[in-house]
Amino acid sequence: MYRTNTCGELRLADAGKEVTLAGWVQRSRKMGGMTFIDLRDRYGLTQIVFNNADNAELCEQANHLGREYVVQVTGTVAERSAKNPALPTGDIEIIAGALKVLNPSEVPPFTIEDETDGGDDLRMKFRYLDLRRPCVRKNLELRHKMTMEVRRYLDSKGFLEIETPMLVGSTPEGARDFVVPSRMNPGQFYALPQSPQTLKQLLMVSGMDRYFQIVKCFRDEDLRADRQPEFTQIDCEMSYVSQEDVISLFEGMAKHLFKELRGVEITEPFIRMPWADAMRLYGSDKPDLRFGMEFVELMDIMKGHGFGVFDSAEYIGGICAKGAASYTRKQLDQLTDFVKRPQIGAKGMVYARVEDDGSVKSSVDKFYTQEVLQQMKQAFQAEPGDLILILSGDDAMKTRKQLCELRLEMGNRLGLRDKNKFACLWVVDFPMFEWSEEEQRLMAMHHPFTHPKDEDIPLLDTKPEEVRADAYDMVVNGVEVGGGSIRIHDSALQAKMFEILGFTPEKAQEQFGFLMNAFKYGAPPHGGLAYGLDRWVSLFAGLDSIRDCMAFPKNNSGRDVMLEAPSALDQKQLDELQLALDPKEK
Amino acid sequence: MYRTNTCGELRLADAGKEVTLAGWVQRSRKMGGMTFIDLRDRYGLTQIVFNNADNAELCEQANHLGREYVVQVTGTVAERSAKNPALPTGDIEIIAGALKVLNPSEVPPFTIEDETDGGDDLRMKFRYLDLRRPCVRKNLELRHKMTMEVRRYLDSKGFLEIETPMLVGSTPEGARDFVVPSRMNPGQFYALPQSPQTLKQLLMVSGMDRYFQIVKCFRDEDLRADRQPEFTQIDCEMSYVSQEDVISLFEGMAKHLFKELRGVEITEPFIRMPWADAMRLYGSDKPDLRFGMEFVELMDIMKGHGFGVFDSAEYIGGICAKGAASYTRKQLDQLTDFVKRPQIGAKGMVYARVEDDGSVKSSVDKFYTQEVLQQMKQAFQAEPGDLILILSGDDAMKTRKQLCELRLEMGNRLGLRDKNKFACLWVVDFPMFEWSEEEQRLMAMHHPFTHPKDEDIPLLDTKPEEVRADAYDMVVNGVEVGGGSIRIHDSALQAKMFEILGFTPEKAQEQFGFLMNAFKYGAPPHGGLAYGLDRWVSLFAGLDSIRDCMAFPKNNSGRDVMLEAPSALDQKQLDELQLALDPKEK
Repeated sequence: MYRTNTCGELRLADAGKEVTLAGWVQRSRKMGGMTFIDLRDRYGLTQIVFNNADNAELCEQANHLGREYVVQVTGTVAERSAKNPALPTGDIEIIAGALKVLNPSEVPPFTIEDETDGGDDLRMKFRYLDLRRPCVRKNLELRHKMTMEVRRYLDSKGFLEIETPMLVGSTPEGARDFVVPSRMNPGQFYALPQSPQTLKQLLMVSGMDRYFQIVKCFRDEDLRADRQPEFTQIDCEMSYVSQEDVISLFEGMAKHLFKELRGVEITEPFIRMPWADAMRLYGSDKPDLRFGMEFVELMDIMKGHGFGVFDSAEYIGGICAKGAASYTRKQLDQLTDFVKRPQIGAKGMVYARVEDDGSVKSSVDKFYTQEVLQQMKQAFQAEPGDLILILSGDDAMKTRKQLCELRLEMGNRLGLRDKNKFACLWVVDFPMFEWSEEEQRLMAMHHPFTHPKDEDIPLLDTKPEEVRADAYDMVVNGVEVGGGSIRIHDSALQAKMFEILGFTPEKAQEQFGFLMNAFKYGAPPHGGLAYGLDRWVSLFAGLDSIRDCMAFPKNNSGRDVMLEAPSALDQKQLDELQLALDPKEK
Repeated sequence: MYRTNTCGELRLADAGKEVTLAGWVQRSRKMGGMTFIDLRDRYGLTQIVFNNADNAELCEQANHLGREYVVQVTGTVAERSAKNPALPTGDIEIIAGALKVLNPSEVPPFTIEDETDGGDDLRMKFRYLDLRRPCVRKNLELRHKMTMEVRRYLDSKGFLEIETPMLVGSTPEGARDFVVPSRMNPGQFYALPQSPQTLKQLLMVSGMDRYFQIVKCFRDEDLRADRQPEFTQIDCEMSYVSQEDVISLFEGMAKHLFKELRGVEITEPFIRMPWADAMRLYGSDKPDLRFGMEFVELMDIMKGHGFGVFDSAEYIGGICAKGAASYTRKQLDQLTDFVKRPQIGAKGMVYARVEDDGSVKSSVDKFYTQEVLQQMKQAFQAEPGDLILILSGDDAMKTRKQLCELRLEMGNRLGLRDKNKFACLWVVDFPMFEWSEEEQRLMAMHHPFTHPKDEDIPLLDTKPEEVRADAYDMVVNGVEVGGGSIRIHDSALQAKMFEILGFTPEKAQEQFGFLMNAFKYGAPPHGGLAYGLDRWVSLFAGLDSIRDCMAFPKNNSGRDVMLEAPSALDQKQLDELQLALDPKEK
């Protein structure tokens, strides 16, 4: 037993007690004949006092402690004369009677404080020191609390957590798999699962009724800020359910989590927004509803007045930024530059201010009469002081996506995206398919196991691109935190789906035969959903990236710079796997 | 909503209610003008009645239902005239008013009953049907309950569940790694973790204080009945603890699990048995203490009497099987054959019966006087009716292991290994190292991070083979369910350990530099333990293999015969990974 108490628990009521603490030296300072040490552990900070007058030798020892030394201190709890109300233990200090250095420390490469001087790369290389910073540690504590709450909730609803295998078969449909060569089956490979999708469907066929799993998934994709090669899903599936049943249960879970983890009570049902409306009004299938600024389409009003850009456009639409009419020319130029960045790709931006007298001044005044501009103002229900921003283009969907970026940027600039405010909705009625220019075929928008809406099934043969799916995404603050669908449980319908997706019957059998066969033996109707745990936690933690809610994340090249993984293999290992490196010309 | 109730919940109090159930047709039978269907789901069985007199058309539909059809039935709950007390729903039946086939089923390839006609291979290929059998489903339900209880317990003790990465670096020390080629870092590989050992130690360096994780681990070993390429650990680590602290906390958890999952209250502390005693008395570091039958060493008594086999032996020892003197010659020959099997490898077996009059009759009577045999009897404290079985050999450890197998076999034959009885102990004081004939060097018996006993540290330089470790295994019924150790937290001691294990400083730095570097920045004393979840669950479920407590296990060739994984990759995938197959001559 190295300690009687943690560094976070002693209070004034403990005064007089003899205690032993162990922890890290956060900082030390000498004042007169006294040396003060702040001792830190996961639970808090406690002040230790060494008095030179009482014990000069001990005080001298304390004077030699460096930052991050691991020490054990025995002493007496005493009331502080100068209390620190910012610290839970701030009413007391420990008058040290004994000190033992359990482990010294070299000077850490950056300060172990919330505000640190360590850059990203350095912090990742010494992640074990970075994790000592309370602001990082808190994210992992939140993550633990979240998974505990999820499990308690789902257990109370009769869900069984069932582990599915990590070494599965490779399925070229979808993203790229990570693969694992099999030594016992030379020349063959396992794949790491992109999700347990087919396995959880098999668990429904097996009658497990309600399944969940908090599970690692893997995608070998090029990385972005919110992507990691391995990530964690809260994966769920239920039998004998309709879309309404799934949405209702998981909306309940989301509300439970908001309450338990953030103290936010959400009493209203989440908005249900058809995908088509989300695209039309926000240019996104994951709209941020913390603020309005819906798109207004202006084709009727603005087209055909001699402004060539608009006259040739297939889409003209804009947003109204309340109270932003005072934006300077420079700010407007910045916005124009913003939408013209290659990642967004707009050709330009038109703006219009509503003046105090109600008149509209626009950047295209020479093409439009005040009457037309007033009609436009009406369409936005704009008021004096508002700023209208308009984009146009020859592809409606692309232009909407550009306008979406502009809307989010304006939301940021106007402070409308408060991290402590949460706007939740379900996006529903997704299209079943989307056209892939690259593959020149229809692709499943969710995945090939998604059930089409019953009323749209007749369209599968005639207008598959109009078929909507029993699919739903939960969106919070513009982040897709989860999504799912009702699945096909009929092997004939599943076969038809593969046919529309361009699979030959042989190819479908080869890749998904195990599932289609299973459907022949009494598959129940079923559906489910998967939440992205990392995204949920970052959302609750107010983080911009999922990286900081993972203990040991990888960098943008997929490397763990602390472990120096991946790395080269011994030749012996390659030989055992009957593999050879085959470097390609750059 | 496909149902108002499950097939397991209706009782007599529900009589008169209109309900809708959905599930699988377990069986159907016609009796007179009635058709009875047993409808099954995860929650139970409910009897449905179709009355030809009431609704001939509906009854006719019911007559066409096959086994495992998925149906939805609406009807009225009614009291049964012939109740079935074996069934929780046995007091009621549903008088059907409507029937809908949700999905038909082909005839399943084996019967969906606890006692099935399906062989292992067939059941694995159709595992989704095998899982419908209540006896298999119950194992997964138990597994779920166990992980919930483990998490509740550890959470209540301040442990944080922290996910460590699955894509880590390869460490040739230990078993063989599964590796994952990195597309973004061509020619380099990740490894799948054999355990999160080093990562959890880094979490202690990072001040997480108490960590756990229920986590998949991977070992590419040739498989046996109780091995799988992927398995699940309950992995735990604590800071500022001694061996006593770890043992005490996890003994508490074990007792909690016994109580919650099996209703077994264990009030006594678990036995602590030094490794040397376990080997001496049971020939095993995981003795089955459900029965005694300790080894008795007979070198002093039996050597030097002219029986060449014993006279040249380095070890002579035996066990006393109470009441087995009546074993026939045939049974004794079977036992001799048993110990002579190549897997065990004994050269022969000596036996001796204690007769009703107290005299001893042995298979080596011609070499021993009754006086010597009586001394032997005394050594065993044998009584009339007992059977003494003796092995000898020129390697004490090997012979003890053979005698261990014989002891377990006798335990089985005498019915002493009751699956509903649990004998728990801690094996402690393990040797730090063991000599590897294959590698011709000392190997770490646990792993290279294990802390030697403080009092044995001086022996590291002089007699490393005598150094004992702060290591401990928890053993239940002859199964090692978990094990752990106090870890080295001092980088100098860790470096010395690698030196004794034959690592050059460069090799140690290359493989474990990240850990030794971390120890320079204030590593706290720490230790932990990992339980094998699969083994725990099989033990509680009374299973002989870990396979049946996994949803989708692999066979002895590491194959998932349902998914047909592993399999060949597309050439495109190999090209992207810059790898080539390199088949070796057989």
